[in-house]
Amino acid sequence: MKKRIGILTGGGDCPGLNAVIRGVVKSAIIGRGWEVAGFEDGFDGLLYDRGPRTLGFDDVRGILPRGGTILGTSNRGNPFSYPVEVNGTTVFTDVSDRVVKRIRELGIDALVAVGGDGSLKIALELMKKGVPVVGVPKTIDNDLMETDVTFGYNTALETATDALDKLHSTAESHHRVMIMEVMGRYAGWIALESGISGGADVILIPEIPFELNSVCNAIDARRCRGSKFSILVVAEGAYPRGGSRVVQKKADETTAIERLGGIGAFVSRELTSCLDMDIRVTVLGHLQRGGSPSTFDRCLGSRFGVGAVELIERGQFGEMICLKGRAIRSVPIEKAVRKLKLVNPGGQMVTAAKELGINVGRD
Amino acid sequence: MKKRIGILTGGGDCPGLNAVIRGVVKSAIIGRGWEVAGFEDGFDGLLYDRGPRTLGFDDVRGILPRGGTILGTSNRGNPFSYPVEVNGTTVFTDVSDRVVKRIRELGIDALVAVGGDGSLKIALELMKKGVPVVGVPKTIDNDLMETDVTFGYNTALETATDALDKLHSTAESHHRVMIMEVMGRYAGWIALESGISGGADVILIPEIPFELNSVCNAIDARRCRGSKFSILVVAEGAYPRGGSRVVQKKADETTAIERLGGIGAFVSRELTSCLDMDIRVTVLGHLQRGGSPSTFDRCLGSRFGVGAVELIERGQFGEMICLKGRAIRSVPIEKAVRKLKLVNPGGQMVTAAKELGINVGRD
Amino acid sequence: MKKRIGILTGGGDCPGLNAVIRGVVKSAIIGRGWEVAGFEDGFDGLLYDRGPRTLGFDDVRGILPRGGTILGTSNRGNPFSYPVEVNGTTVFTDVSDRVVKRIRELGIDALVAVGGDGSLKIALELMKKGVPVVGVPKTIDNDLMETDVTFGYNTALETATDALDKLHSTAESHHRVMIMEVMGRYAGWIALESGISGGADVILIPEIPFELNSVCNAIDARRCRGSKFSILVVAEGAYPRGGSRVVQKKADETTAIERLGGIGAFVSRELTSCLDMDIRVTVLGHLQRGGSPSTFDRCLGSRFGVGAVELIERGQFGEMICLKGRAIRSVPIEKAVRKLKLVNPGGQMVTAAKELGINVGRD
Amino acid sequence: MKKRIGILTGGGDCPGLNAVIRGVVKSAIIGRGWEVAGFEDGFDGLLYDRGPRTLGFDDVRGILPRGGTILGTSNRGNPFSYPVEVNGTTVFTDVSDRVVKRIRELGIDALVAVGGDGSLKIALELMKKGVPVVGVPKTIDNDLMETDVTFGYNTALETATDALDKLHSTAESHHRVMIMEVMGRYAGWIALESGISGGADVILIPEIPFELNSVCNAIDARRCRGSKFSILVVAEGAYPRGGSRVVQKKADETTAIERLGGIGAFVSRELTSCLDMDIRVTVLGHLQRGGSPSTFDRCLGSRFGVGAVELIERGQFGEMICLKGRAIRSVPIEKAVRKLKLVNPGGQMVTAAKELGINVGRD
Repeated sequence: MKKRIGILTGGGDCPGLNAVIRGVVKSAIIGRGWEVAGFEDGFDGLLYDRGPRTLGFDDVRGILPRGGTILGTSNRGNPFSYPVEVNGTTVFTDVSDRVVKRIRELGIDALVAVGGDGSLKIALELMKKGVPVVGVPKTIDNDLMETDVTFGYNTALETATDALDKLHSTAESHHRVMIMEVMGRYAGWIALESGISGGADVILIPEIPFELNSVCNAIDARRCRGSKFSILVVAEGAYPRGGSRVVQKKADETTAIERLGGIGAFVSRELTSCLDMDIRVTVLGHLQRGGSPSTFDRCLGSRFGVGAVELIERGQFGEMICLKGRAIRSVPIEKAVRKLKLVNPGGQMVTAAKELGINVGRD
Repeated sequence: MKKRIGILTGGGDCPGLNAVIRGVVKSAIIGRGWEVAGFEDGFDGLLYDRGPRTLGFDDVRGILPRGGTILGTSNRGNPFSYPVEVNGTTVFTDVSDRVVKRIRELGIDALVAVGGDGSLKIALELMKKGVPVVGVPKTIDNDLMETDVTFGYNTALETATDALDKLHSTAESHHRVMIMEVMGRYAGWIALESGISGGADVILIPEIPFELNSVCNAIDARRCRGSKFSILVVAEGAYPRGGSRVVQKKADETTAIERLGGIGAFVSRELTSCLDMDIRVTVLGHLQRGGSPSTFDRCLGSRFGVGAVELIERGQFGEMICLKGRAIRSVPIEKAVRKLKLVNPGGQMVTAAKELGINVGRD
Repeated sequence: MKKRIGILTGGGDCPGLNAVIRGVVKSAIIGRGWEVAGFEDGFDGLLYDRGPRTLGFDDVRGILPRGGTILGTSNRGNPFSYPVEVNGTTVFTDVSDRVVKRIRELGIDALVAVGGDGSLKIALELMKKGVPVVGVPKTIDNDLMETDVTFGYNTALETATDALDKLHSTAESHHRVMIMEVMGRYAGWIALESGISGGADVILIPEIPFELNSVCNAIDARRCRGSKFSILVVAEGAYPRGGSRVVQKKADETTAIERLGGIGAFVSRELTSCLDMDIRVTVLGHLQRGGSPSTFDRCLGSRFGVGAVELIERGQFGEMICLKGRAIRSVPIEKAVRKLKLVNPGGQMVTAAKELGINVGRD
Repeated sequence: MKKRIGILTGGGDCPGLNAVIRGVVKSAIIGRGWEVAGFEDGFDGLLYDRGPRTLGFDDVRGILPRGGTILGTSNRGNPFSYPVEVNGTTVFTDVSDRVVKRIRELGIDALVAVGGDGSLKIALELMKKGVPVVGVPKTIDNDLMETDVTFGYNTALETATDALDKLHSTAESHHRVMIMEVMGRYAGWIALESGISGGADVILIPEIPFELNSVCNAIDARRCRGSKFSILVVAEGAYPRGGSRVVQKKADETTAIERLGGIGAFVSRELTSCLDMDIRVTVLGHLQRGGSPSTFDRCLGSRFGVGAVELIERGQFGEMICLKGRAIRSVPIEKAVRKLKLVNPGGQMVTAAKELGINVGRD
């Protein structure tokens, strides 16, 4: 039966989103003859008067190598807690009934929600209100459960590893300590894996609160062995042992470490007191979210898009597409959003880092 | 107990080999205090009078981002069938006893053999003669069983996908059919996955003998829909239905397709007869083997190196390190070399390609 | 006064064409309020019934980083010798009157012709028939007189140098002689400059017919000094001393070297007879024309586009925009197309290559 | 006559330094048979007891594609004002006599000083004290007079342009204002040229003190035209009209803008007050100095190295090698260091930016 399916991309930008959109559009139209309606700006688009726009071959032509998302995205727009301006103050209201009504009126048979933790939880709530939903996992941090990896993560690693290669030559030429701060508020995957790939000497991640002494000694030991420079990769959510973890904050709160200008600057300041070396900090920031997706992310994104359409065809609503080994599978969204996938401090990846001589913030 | 372990890299060049070597050296020395002996030029090095050279931190410094192998490699040098010049003709002799004797004399407690199908089979034979061996899989083509992927493959995909991006702009500007021939004598993985990532319109692989009519129609159908160009990715081992498969050849044999200048040129010639379009062929060739390894291959190679040392420590000889999902595991080498891992014509990856509107040589 | 100007891109694809188009469109509209008419497929578009299409901001949005040309291009379509099918055979006719008439009818006040040698000569002829023309030089080979460089050349160098980096690691690992054939039918600039940047050992260019003995000795001398590999860069138009130069050919002619599969294959075969080494050939081909333009080519293309509009504003018709040092200047097209800018065998660049120990085909 | 020449690399890290060193070593040894002595860590190395080390072919093998400098560098070490620890405080002393004496004792016939403004001035002073010196210009900022460009600049532009490409996709997907801070304390070349190449909407440089109103209006005008995002490139030395210019500071001084966290953060804060848009800042920092040099910088660096040796051979001491158009020339160092080469606010490059619709901080 011919269907009309909707698609939206929510949360932060992530390389490979366009591959997913293209995969959904192509596999929906070819063979199936379905119609695809693209909602703009994440869940926000479900509330717009205008739109959605029907996506055809022309709309997805040439978008595979392009970063970003042709549909736009938004970090706001949770219909269950939607910011509405009332008498000059922002009030958060449940507008989900309006959303569900609109989806029905538009004749949307199923909705593909591409997003991370937050977006998938919203999708799940919509599902409970009767909207047939399938999920496509998206997180640059790779901290989503139930999938080996998500698209975007590999591209972010490429950007971080490339940056480490660049910092290496300068560190070596100037005998400097270079600190690079990467994304990862809760999970240290980007720091850990790019650090291994980029030949880092120290990697600090949220899952292993670090001891400054240990870091200091590691750098000093390198200097004694004749390596006059060191490279540190620090996840933005890393924090010193005994210090306070960065927690989910409301808009007007800042944590102690953020007041200091980020964890990279914090580590730099602390190291200055125990090392007589030139120390520099680079914050990679938004560069990690952008750019043309890597071959891995283009292929994975495309396969996820195709898989989402197949889920709809088989009526597997409430499921999220995922990667297991080399195979595309699916799991209940519920299982995927229960908790974050964190680095296991005693697991294989951390052990490998240690075996490679990398200090992970502890002896 | 302190050990002296040997390492060699055999077969074709592959990005990530240096990451493996570095991983072995670092994890053997740090914590364990073992000594690592590097044999040059693959199995050839086991027969050299000179060497092996002891590998220390200085030898592996800065090699992580570098392509190739600091140990050199060789496609020859099978000690069970070694080419010896006798009265002007080459005779293949079994020199494995000499090799086994030398390994013992050098006090090598275990040998890490990094290589593909061929090299791992040789390693297995040495194992049977009493040499404690562990294997690290290496194949740019990703056609080795029992591991999700091998290092080098991702870098090759990046190179192929990047080349497809380049060909796209020219194809589009000139309304041309561009054929790109990639590696893959038996397995079409590179063609298939780079083709999906690079937005190819046709992908021809050895596992699915192609029908020229089908390919021709696919390109023509695109033209009718207004797409005045097409991109074909062809694995070097692809062949027309009913045609003869490229088979393992001795040095002085050439197949029919090779006599025609490769499958890319063959397809070009055949398409010329049924299409009135400008057709150009690019053979990617050795570019796929070189270059700085991608972040994926650097991390995987490093973990494989660490894993190989752990196998030795646990006495798991005859085993090969491998990747399953995100985890490093091991399997008997015997299982891995029994047959090649080919693309399943009815499997997920081919189906995804078709769903994306890609012609795979058949309707 | 408000104007309506036309633009076309002729000849081979070249990274930076879109930057030129964008530069013309933006500078024509902003401040001046002119209208820009884009002709498709080079000079062919002047004869189409449909088009030209009016180019606005939306048409040039996001095209700066993209290779190719949004207008399409063509190597055919010379209106002074236009291929017309008459009773099954192709006859070349002068249709320039029709072209001139059409340009007038469309109310085109001036035409920006972006192209190489051939396209600029056509532009000059149209100029003589009364069409106000300005030229923007375009040649990937950098063989156009009167401009220091053209856009596209730097990107082609990046592609060739990157390929040499890749071949290096394989050459070194396998102790091979790697031959890379690059573009340059008449001028050896790409071979020479990418060879210097890529650390080549031998560079063969059309301007210096090579002696095989010299090349052979150079590779042998390297081997004697312990360098077991060598890298050769060969321009497609290179030829052996005493051999015949590749000359401009009609469609049905092939030169001796082409019959042998190109100069790379030729050199490979010849070297095989004097060297006992493994030799491999890579033909870079179309990869050199594609891809996202480098920063140099994007900036130069943009400035050329702006400069072309300024030429029109000042009424400097028959002039071509060019780069001298860091400055944009202009010269009569006539001066630029008189002859090709070839490498001076006794000039600075060749001398530098020799001083760096590079063999250029002669002792 | 056989010579022994010295070489040092001073000042900040810069891609292409290794190409220069390799060029000097190769051209000095090949044909001339000279000896090359490499001093480590810039002018500091002239005062070390150890070294210099003799540089041969093996030392420069494989360094062409590598960033940094194999000789190390230093921003300190001015022998005319050398920091010496006296009773716990740092005193700056003239130790140039010791340096001159050491150079003579080592039998150095000529010194190649590779460096920027500061290093070349020191070289000139040494020249006046009798040391035969030739200069090779090096500045990532391209602010050195008397040479069209210097090596390193093009690589920095590539890094900055690539970063802008990455920010573009995120800016567009999230409807954000993205500010990227690049190097350029006095000269805005990197900001200006990467901004043109990267499709920036606003470029702020030290040579044109900006008006916030103008910037604000430009972004707002874009939004009104439907472009819901904007990209700003800001040179680190940019400052608001009427604000105070960043001036050369002693170690313990900070300017007002630096206290605010840099000019990028400053602009972000100011724009927040006049725009209701999401604004993000990225500081590119040290990434601009590192990485494998681009083809342009490798070729230029190599030619500069060769040229420096030729200057020595011809006895042209006190001269600096430079690029004019496509030719290598030389000028008295004195002329080159008199003042910095700044962007001309009324010059071609700024005018081109404006014609492309870029706001440069003024209407």
